[in-house]
Amino acid sequence: MSPLSPKTANNPLKVHDAELARYRARVEHVLTLRLDHLKAPRDLHDAMRYAVLGGGKRLRASLVYATGEALQAPESDLDAGAAAVEMIHAYSLVHDDLPCMDDDDERRGKPSCHKAFGEAVALLAGDALQTAAFETLADGASARRLPMIALLARAAGADGMVGGQTTDLHAATDASTVATLEDMHSRKTGALIQASVLLGGLAAGGDPGVLAALSEYGRCVGLAFQIMDDVLDIATDAPKAGGPARATYPGLLGVDAARARAISLRDRALVNVAILGDNGTVLGALADFAVNRNH
Amino acid sequence: MSPLSPKTANNPLKVHDAELARYRARVEHVLTLRLDHLKAPRDLHDAMRYAVLGGGKRLRASLVYATGEALQAPESDLDAGAAAVEMIHAYSLVHDDLPCMDDDDERRGKPSCHKAFGEAVALLAGDALQTAAFETLADGASARRLPMIALLARAAGADGMVGGQTTDLHAATDASTVATLEDMHSRKTGALIQASVLLGGLAAGGDPGVLAALSEYGRCVGLAFQIMDDVLDIATDAPKAGGPARATYPGLLGVDAARARAISLRDRALVNVAILGDNGTVLGALADFAVNRNH
Repeated sequence: MSPLSPKTANNPLKVHDAELARYRARVEHVLTLRLDHLKAPRDLHDAMRYAVLGGGKRLRASLVYATGEALQAPESDLDAGAAAVEMIHAYSLVHDDLPCMDDDDERRGKPSCHKAFGEAVALLAGDALQTAAFETLADGASARRLPMIALLARAAGADGMVGGQTTDLHAATDASTVATLEDMHSRKTGALIQASVLLGGLAAGGDPGVLAALSEYGRCVGLAFQIMDDVLDIATDAPKAGGPARATYPGLLGVDAARARAISLRDRALVNVAILGDNGTVLGALADFAVNRNH
Repeated sequence: MSPLSPKTANNPLKVHDAELARYRARVEHVLTLRLDHLKAPRDLHDAMRYAVLGGGKRLRASLVYATGEALQAPESDLDAGAAAVEMIHAYSLVHDDLPCMDDDDERRGKPSCHKAFGEAVALLAGDALQTAAFETLADGASARRLPMIALLARAAGADGMVGGQTTDLHAATDASTVATLEDMHSRKTGALIQASVLLGGLAAGGDPGVLAALSEYGRCVGLAFQIMDDVLDIATDAPKAGGPARATYPGLLGVDAARARAISLRDRALVNVAILGDNGTVLGALADFAVNRNH
């Protein structure tokens, strides 16, 4: 028997388009307000806006809102976490695109930040976006913002995202196995996706049992999302520009086995949100989205 | 009449060598413990240690400890603030030395971080040190760590240190006045020095009147410190390597007037710590150190 409940299985993501569009609009508004209140030099300010506003799927912010709402938190308690995690994500992309890293000239069809503003300003805009993420959380409405700050820092730092980025520098030359690839991705992209779920859960005051299930849900969604990124790169014949070829799931496992691994992780994510009953349907849809998407 | 109290005037910094050596040893220990508990990839971990351990005057950490102790806080409540501000300072130096910024090959007589570890790892080590600063504060012992995080973020980010670094990119070409130079330095180096004082004050639970006086003390010490940096650069014939000549206080005012401005700021700092009575003598000595030093 499939671990998908009939309800979840019959609810493809488009049923939840309205919620997701609302999350995207809301985090855009919150990010705009947070950036507007800065008194930064003009070019730094422009580069920060350029890097963080007006683009992206907002998967991470959506996970904060969807998780928090599943636990009946008011949206105002979720805004800081949603904006903070998108700022961390945006800063990591700006630094990842720099010439000493991936050396990417484009990001989401536009010139990358350093192509638009120069390397020095892009470096500093990334730095300031990271700072702004923690400032946003500290200024947030949730009574749990101190554990939220600790959680986001652990996910974003040397043990999490930045650690994964560092491992990724050597991934092309290291003899890679699925285990080492999975460890790298669980840090590089997985940690922040998992943190998004837990930020929503913490802001909502989730109890330890619920937070443990959410943590496993987030881990599975993060990894499934990354595996499908690799699969989609092959399908669209668009491997990452710059640098030597990198180890990927389809490269190590084949496309079919990689896709099967992503689906299995999606199913495990769904089992873990079952604890939320009907309140978990948007989270179920987001897990589906991680594997059933074309971009 | 001089605004220096006879006691402070007769207490050159060396009387406080023991306290300052104790602060330096203590923050080194706290930084080592915080870095040891990370499970970062080897090269990232090594680069982070290289950037933050075993060097520097530790002015910022000393200001945290000296301020907190002046207000009778236990040292254990001050450790997180002292370590966090040194991590922020270290990350800013790593990024400032990168080729797209100042392009400095040396730092404190050693190869700069990117010369020792490569640009990509240095960039990421700086990123992870910033994250670690906020994680350290969030994990700290002080009951006031939430306002401390907000304070440090405002001082380190787009409105503060990173804003000042951005303005500094154009400082060589902008027609500089003392006012624009002072605004740039009050952000670039002043904000973090002032924040160090206030982190100690907040951790100690200082009342608003004391915090206001400490804030002004910190502002004056930060600016005096920077002016004397410029003066010492001329005296040692060692202007910063790389890039075009920058506007400096001695360049705009002449050496004598720059030194006089630093001394006047030191005096204003001393007036503001007078509120602490005898408990403020170490802070007085640190203000003196900002202007009476040879490195």
